[in-house]
Amino acid sequence: RIMRPDDANIAGNVHGGTILKMIEEAGAIISTRHCNSQAGEACVAALARVERTDFLSPVCIGEVANVSAEITYTSRHSVEVQVNVMSENILTGAKKVTNKATLWYVPLSLKNVNKVLEVPPIQYARKEQEDEGKKRYEEQKLDRLETKQRNGDVIFPVINPEPHTVGYSQSSLIHLVGPSDCTLLGFVHGGVTMKLMDEVAGIVAARHCKTNIVTASVDAINFHEKIKKGSVITISGRMTFTSNKSMEIEVFVDADPFVDESRERYRAVSAFFTYVSLSKEGKPLPVPQLLTETEDEKRRFEEGKGRYLQTKAKRQAQVQQAAR
Amino acid sequence: RIMRPDDANIAGNVHGGTILKMIEEAGAIISTRHCNSQAGEACVAALARVERTDFLSPVCIGEVANVSAEITYTSRHSVEVQVNVMSENILTGAKKVTNKATLWYVPLSLKNVNKVLEVPPIQYARKEQEDEGKKRYEEQKLDRLETKQRNGDVIFPVINPEPHTVGYSQSSLIHLVGPSDCTLLGFVHGGVTMKLMDEVAGIVAARHCKTNIVTASVDAINFHEKIKKGSVITISGRMTFTSNKSMEIEVFVDADPFVDESRERYRAVSAFFTYVSLSKEGKPLPVPQLLTETEDEKRRFEEGKGRYLQTKAKRQAQVQQAAR
Amino acid sequence: RIMRPDDANIAGNVHGGTILKMIEEAGAIISTRHCNSQAGEACVAALARVERTDFLSPVCIGEVANVSAEITYTSRHSVEVQVNVMSENILTGAKKVTNKATLWYVPLSLKNVNKVLEVPPIQYARKEQEDEGKKRYEEQKLDRLETKQRNGDVIFPVINPEPHTVGYSQSSLIHLVGPSDCTLLGFVHGGVTMKLMDEVAGIVAARHCKTNIVTASVDAINFHEKIKKGSVITISGRMTFTSNKSMEIEVFVDADPFVDESRERYRAVSAFFTYVSLSKEGKPLPVPQLLTETEDEKRRFEEGKGRYLQTKAKRQAQVQQAAR
Repeated sequence: RIMRPDDANIAGNVHGGTILKMIEEAGAIISTRHCNSQAGEACVAALARVERTDFLSPVCIGEVANVSAEITYTSRHSVEVQVNVMSENILTGAKKVTNKATLWYVPLSLKNVNKVLEVPPIQYARKEQEDEGKKRYEEQKLDRLETKQRNGDVIFPVINPEPHTVGYSQSSLIHLVGPSDCTLLGFVHGGVTMKLMDEVAGIVAARHCKTNIVTASVDAINFHEKIKKGSVITISGRMTFTSNKSMEIEVFVDADPFVDESRERYRAVSAFFTYVSLSKEGKPLPVPQLLTETEDEKRRFEEGKGRYLQTKAKRQAQVQQAAR
Repeated sequence: RIMRPDDANIAGNVHGGTILKMIEEAGAIISTRHCNSQAGEACVAALARVERTDFLSPVCIGEVANVSAEITYTSRHSVEVQVNVMSENILTGAKKVTNKATLWYVPLSLKNVNKVLEVPPIQYARKEQEDEGKKRYEEQKLDRLETKQRNGDVIFPVINPEPHTVGYSQSSLIHLVGPSDCTLLGFVHGGVTMKLMDEVAGIVAARHCKTNIVTASVDAINFHEKIKKGSVITISGRMTFTSNKSMEIEVFVDADPFVDESRERYRAVSAFFTYVSLSKEGKPLPVPQLLTETEDEKRRFEEGKGRYLQTKAKRQAQVQQAAR
Repeated sequence: RIMRPDDANIAGNVHGGTILKMIEEAGAIISTRHCNSQAGEACVAALARVERTDFLSPVCIGEVANVSAEITYTSRHSVEVQVNVMSENILTGAKKVTNKATLWYVPLSLKNVNKVLEVPPIQYARKEQEDEGKKRYEEQKLDRLETKQRNGDVIFPVINPEPHTVGYSQSSLIHLVGPSDCTLLGFVHGGVTMKLMDEVAGIVAARHCKTNIVTASVDAINFHEKIKKGSVITISGRMTFTSNKSMEIEVFVDADPFVDESRERYRAVSAFFTYVSLSKEGKPLPVPQLLTETEDEKRRFEEGKGRYLQTKAKRQAQVQQAAR
């Protein structure tokens, strides 16, 4: 579809969140279709996890985004979908790969939302494809367990913060979940949540560096808990790490099902977003260093540095492998 | 209402699809009101057909669109509505007729969506009005039958197409039908479908000629089948004909009620859109000729030429009549 | 236009903010048209103030809102517009007055947004109309000055608040101002701001009483400062007063023009919203009393009580006058 002014920031770059939302919609359609392809109980595929994805090149207003999706692995209760996004300038015909994402979906019964149904198996062209898929499946399962434990953290507001401290740029947003945000089951689309997360992360990044910023990558996101229609969700973001040219922002999503008094507020999702600052010509700009004050902030900065160096090393390995 | 940036292309011209959506909403309101004006079963008017309409002048961001609607004929089970759109520049006070459209609605029972109710008759000022309305009614009924038969065609993707061939510009878009797309009965508003059709046709046109394009006219559109909430719709477009300064694009809408296993994917709507290419000053530009390759493409080109010449002849006849 | 699921809460009642947004759009159209009706510099009318308005009856999904607007007074630099909203159930034909609002607009030059232009005078049918308009003009001018002084207050977050205290329900929302939120001048439409204010106030009310709530009235709202495209706005709400069946919520709008480093964050708007809690049958429910803790909270509660009693007295006087 054509990118509109509302999809983009004032410099004309389409928000990473808009792209994530399109990716998730494509994934939800293909996996819901697959899970209903055999006779049996009707179901809707719900997003369980998005693997780490890089935004390779910015998309602009007026360009067309082409989204294609393919099922690459099925376990008994989950579907792995690979989604590719190409941006196309329809005036020049130029096409660029924007990003490639891997998503995991779980089929939930239309009659009983708490019941996970079985996934019809797909056919693999080669045996290795199945084995590699199984390996990816086991890896993401482990990672899901891990993040579940990390999930207790809360962001406290800071009064009169100094520029470039964590408190200075931290932001939070509340959103009342409406019908258009939801699937047929009455739960928020994963893509809607990711779009709001990107919005908050972008505000944190812009408050820190006061320039035009774009999403560079998103770490793996796990969707631990469903969010029901009518809930209020609070999306909070704080900066955790800065390198010379990038900022890492941690984002939490908390749901408050306040028409349903039996449940307390709970953490539904958390993730790390990385942003870069761009000049008017689209070149990366240096970023002011994050000033850490408390012990926790210093620890998170070091953890962020670890993730940054790990990603950098991985990317260099890939480049070397490609060059061989 | 005031036209916003999201209603328009990057040159600031409001999408034909936005106008069609407003027209349809006005028509749905007036015909639903009329069909419920007598005691009896409550109903919602569903769009059955839009007659051919020309976009006489482009509307720009910031202008106000004034939509007025009037019931001009009623048969036993259908309502004909005439809708006029005027664009008004509230800064200069200038008003222009944007287009005039004729729509046909059918009242569906609120309790049983498959039941068509009776329409209360309207009063005609003169007997001739009734006779002319009846003639229009019979004509559109015939045309509806005809297009129903044409509806089997499918668009296949082409690998590495040459510029200006049919395969080069053909495009398709998928959309998951959400609650705000639907009427009280849980079926997609005709206006929502038309807006998506215009979006795809616009992408096809822009890919072909790589310039700023606007909707010039829409051929009669027949809504053969309702589309249910939760369906996935695929809107596909391909170019069928080019004259020196216009492009004709055929658009198909296929619905996939994929949570409802009892139904296969089906063709819900099809239509022809005509686009022109505009320079920065708003003057029509020459359009590259469509290169046809297969026998089918050549046949469709000739059919398109037929429609083009027929419309041209009709318009000249009208001009001459007006000049007399 | 027809009210959609996205315009309403989960009980199907249309948000007061949606109505306020429609009212403001109608007012902006009629006053921009009027101010450009004479030769001279082109201008856009900007909302300066909305008078207190009551929501007389809730509007539901599927109903049509009819908005009509009329200019009732002009001073040298401002326009008073009276807007009426009728909701119409197009199935039954039933019409109800939803609310009547009075708005004040100021024409700003299209070339220089800081220049207020002169308003062409309107013709009055009777001399008294002009005198009464002038009286309303002077009154609102006074009130505008007063609220400007109140505007320094800030909402501080509270850690682990008790139920039914002020801290328990207070909420805030951030929003990045996009192109569709703005007028031709690149400043936020007053209606967009009011819609967000109603959203926050509604969340505060729902958090307090955990039931279905609807907007009952909005006190006069003054728009002291324009908000520029690309700004981040923070909308914060806190409960100030509860009667047996109503809640008063104070809402602040702060703008952060963070791409424009020369300006600090500033208070753009503030207002009081009153909500009632409704049962499933649409009957008003008792509201839990607000627990005030600090001196400031007690003072604000008393002030809210004053406003509540004053409004009640005024309404009774009107009823008696009407009964005579």
